[in-house]
Amino acid sequence: MRLVLAPYLAEFLDANIVGVLATERPDGRPRQSLVYYARDGERVLVTTDAARQKVADVRRNAWASLCVMAHDRPFPSATFAGPARILTQDIGVATAAVIQRVADLDEPPEPQSDEALAGVGRVILAIEIERVGPVTYVEGG
Amino acid sequence: MRLVLAPYLAEFLDANIVGVLATERPDGRPRQSLVYYARDGERVLVTTDAARQKVADVRRNAWASLCVMAHDRPFPSATFAGPARILTQDIGVATAAVIQRVADLDEPPEPQSDEALAGVGRVILAIEIERVGPVTYVEGG
Repeated sequence: MRLVLAPYLAEFLDANIVGVLATERPDGRPRQSLVYYARDGERVLVTTDAARQKVADVRRNAWASLCVMAHDRPFPSATFAGPARILTQDIGVATAAVIQRVADLDEPPEPQSDEALAGVGRVILAIEIERVGPVTYVEGG
Repeated sequence: MRLVLAPYLAEFLDANIVGVLATERPDGRPRQSLVYYARDGERVLVTTDAARQKVADVRRNAWASLCVMAHDRPFPSATFAGPARILTQDIGVATAAVIQRVADLDEPPEPQSDEALAGVGRVILAIEIERVGPVTYVEGG
């Protein structure tokens, strides 16, 4: 069954801009890195370089986790995980949505074409949120 | 060979108080949660409840990763990973060091005995830093 994200968690994702992405290395150990993301319904989207090892991890095992936090005590946080894919088609709008948050723009920049994004090696890592938790100190929970 | 932590990374760990811990679930997928930590030389120490699944993960596969970030743009970050253990002996000082940071105290509280900590189910999850990276925007790098 498709998860419906509780509104307070959707708001929490929208109110923050970075999280820690975790993927599974070939040896099973977690690989972590800080990423900017954007939410699209029940998905979180990350723009990244196709050559990164986290991209290879997702291509290999199709799962990722994102832990998002607010930045003041007591550091509200929530972890979102689920099936993940690497997208290369129709990614202009998603990429622009993430760039808007990276660059702190009032509006997203003009979307680039898939060809232009491929030319600079950009892909979208998309996580379909299937599991939520732990959630700590997020208001509305 | 034992890693010697670069001073700028030791300072970064000391200047921040929370990170995202990742362990490996039984199915290989990453498990993430926000934790407070303290540094002890080349180790990072987390106080947690013995019943948590991250504790079982570490007992099973003896590895953990911690991604630490600062809380303003551009969100400096560094990921530290290595062999991990669950400690239950001589953990009073380590537990007090973490509690000092959780509670924002000028001095660590009086250390509790191992028996008292066992009575409330507290253990220390200790990571021996063996791998560092990715590191982004941390000054001195």
